[in-house]
Amino acid sequence: MRTFKIEAPDEALRPAIQAKIDNLNKPKGSLGRLEELAMQICLIQQTFEPSLEHPCHLLLGGDHGIEREGVSVSPREVTWQQMINFTHGGGGVNMFCRQHGFKLRIVDIGVDFDLSDVSGIINRKIARGTKNFLYEPAMTEEEFNQAIQVGADLADDCIGEDCKIISIGEMGIGNTSPSSIWMSLFGDISLNNCIGAGSGLDTPGIRHKREVLSKAVERYHQLIPLPSPTSPLIYFGGYEMIAAIGTMLRAAECHLVVLVDGFIMTACALAAIRLYPAAQDYMIFTHCGDESGHRMMLDIVDAKPLLSLGLRLGEGTGALCAFPIVDSAVRMINEMNNFDNAKITKYF
Amino acid sequence: MRTFKIEAPDEALRPAIQAKIDNLNKPKGSLGRLEELAMQICLIQQTFEPSLEHPCHLLLGGDHGIEREGVSVSPREVTWQQMINFTHGGGGVNMFCRQHGFKLRIVDIGVDFDLSDVSGIINRKIARGTKNFLYEPAMTEEEFNQAIQVGADLADDCIGEDCKIISIGEMGIGNTSPSSIWMSLFGDISLNNCIGAGSGLDTPGIRHKREVLSKAVERYHQLIPLPSPTSPLIYFGGYEMIAAIGTMLRAAECHLVVLVDGFIMTACALAAIRLYPAAQDYMIFTHCGDESGHRMMLDIVDAKPLLSLGLRLGEGTGALCAFPIVDSAVRMINEMNNFDNAKITKYF
Repeated sequence: MRTFKIEAPDEALRPAIQAKIDNLNKPKGSLGRLEELAMQICLIQQTFEPSLEHPCHLLLGGDHGIEREGVSVSPREVTWQQMINFTHGGGGVNMFCRQHGFKLRIVDIGVDFDLSDVSGIINRKIARGTKNFLYEPAMTEEEFNQAIQVGADLADDCIGEDCKIISIGEMGIGNTSPSSIWMSLFGDISLNNCIGAGSGLDTPGIRHKREVLSKAVERYHQLIPLPSPTSPLIYFGGYEMIAAIGTMLRAAECHLVVLVDGFIMTACALAAIRLYPAAQDYMIFTHCGDESGHRMMLDIVDAKPLLSLGLRLGEGTGALCAFPIVDSAVRMINEMNNFDNAKITKYF
Repeated sequence: MRTFKIEAPDEALRPAIQAKIDNLNKPKGSLGRLEELAMQICLIQQTFEPSLEHPCHLLLGGDHGIEREGVSVSPREVTWQQMINFTHGGGGVNMFCRQHGFKLRIVDIGVDFDLSDVSGIINRKIARGTKNFLYEPAMTEEEFNQAIQVGADLADDCIGEDCKIISIGEMGIGNTSPSSIWMSLFGDISLNNCIGAGSGLDTPGIRHKREVLSKAVERYHQLIPLPSPTSPLIYFGGYEMIAAIGTMLRAAECHLVVLVDGFIMTACALAAIRLYPAAQDYMIFTHCGDESGHRMMLDIVDAKPLLSLGLRLGEGTGALCAFPIVDSAVRMINEMNNFDNAKITKYF
């Protein structure tokens, strides 16, 4: 894959940023997580007056060969149906984008349906769904590289519009399966603890999913005894998930703020961090979803999510739902008066 | 005190509202707490198309006699200084009100400073601070009734502007002290577990606060062996806190949504619920603050806060910070497409 030049933000400004935050007219630390977010964003942007202008949400769609094994309660046709539905504005992601002023880009990276004529869907299709990783690698290395590049290009499109913050969501029936496997492999956690109900499996359904994924991982280990960091990505990944990793890495390279959504996007973030640890400095983990294992996956990278509202819709809705909190943090440091101007006795 | 006619919302619409929520194009329950909020607000407003129009934030200020005992790290002059600062737009509460489109009403209920000439502060002053409840009741019964009425009138002012949602914040140095005592008395929890650092006390400071408040409660029990439900309110309350209770009760009576902020406002909500249990149906508990004991107080009324971001600024900032989540819930039920229109296979 292409390389990215990702460095941790320069820490030289930290003391001066902290002094600015501490001199806002409020008891020190009394805005809690907002103060931490303000610091993170100031460091990312290397400024005392951060901006979240031109926020952009990427909705990346792709289908998964593993869906053929009955690991999801929804059939794969829901992927393309929802992609089209999003162009009509009636999805959860549309509602949140309108609420928070995000420009929505709906991108077909690998949906198993011809969407090329659908107005409002950006066509970056690599193939009509991945291969079934129970039997073979989900994609070729070439397709993997292509998906990374598509993701990076999408970040560049946003940057070209002076976007300061990117949020990423996904639509891909079956994509909790590769996410669970990545969590297990990258986090060194037993696969069983990484597998949950997805969008609504019952107990026998979860048992079946565990059996299928265990077999797939067993086969992977046999076929690839000496894996590289990209091996699990190529073998199990969805095109939309690999593209998300490409977007995250390019965004970090360009000092953008990245909002990380739920279980699937956290798995992509985990993969991105394993490739480039400094990428994490640019990420805000927005919420802990309802998918069993999400909290554990967040713990792997020591991330404290902003929200915990039992969301499990996907589409990036959790990331969007948390945006106003990030916005509050930026407004705090930009708009709140300081003790000198406000003529408040600074005892507290 | 005056009586309020507060009834639980009619439940007859619940099944039909649930059907509407379940038919939105998303897996059932996948928007978690947003779905619960949508249900609550639909029931409050008795509608399938709820509205949060004309949101209003009341910032109620008052001083506390108990501050003279050194129970707060900030001196009482900070109350009036901050009240004036809020009129200049540079406080935390101003920033949040601008962000979320709330009309801010800054009201002097009992600040120990003449603010009558300050443009932007509504003068409803009952007295220049309460009496010191270490030695005597904080207020008279007449003053208590007056404060309840002031709060109810403020709710009516909002209703007169077609406001559908009221958020309440406070500014009153020393007001964690009465809040801790109410929590102890109304929740039947040992006083020590109800007392924390306020806006920044150190360990000896907390010890001193515990001693002072224990003595005050002991004296209260001696003086008032047969308390009524309003006795702790009159004896320990702040004017701004009693007014908040009046606002909450009048808002519930008129089927408004009430956003409950942090430790102090939760104590007021607890008091309001003890007077009128059905008032709770109109309340949304917005956040769990950093003040030790807040989580425990929320547990008393079995409330699950929306946010837990370590906020402890007061002013109602936590309630305002959570508003967009409530707004998302309303937008969800109003704006999301349903399965029939969206032509999505409803397997999930």
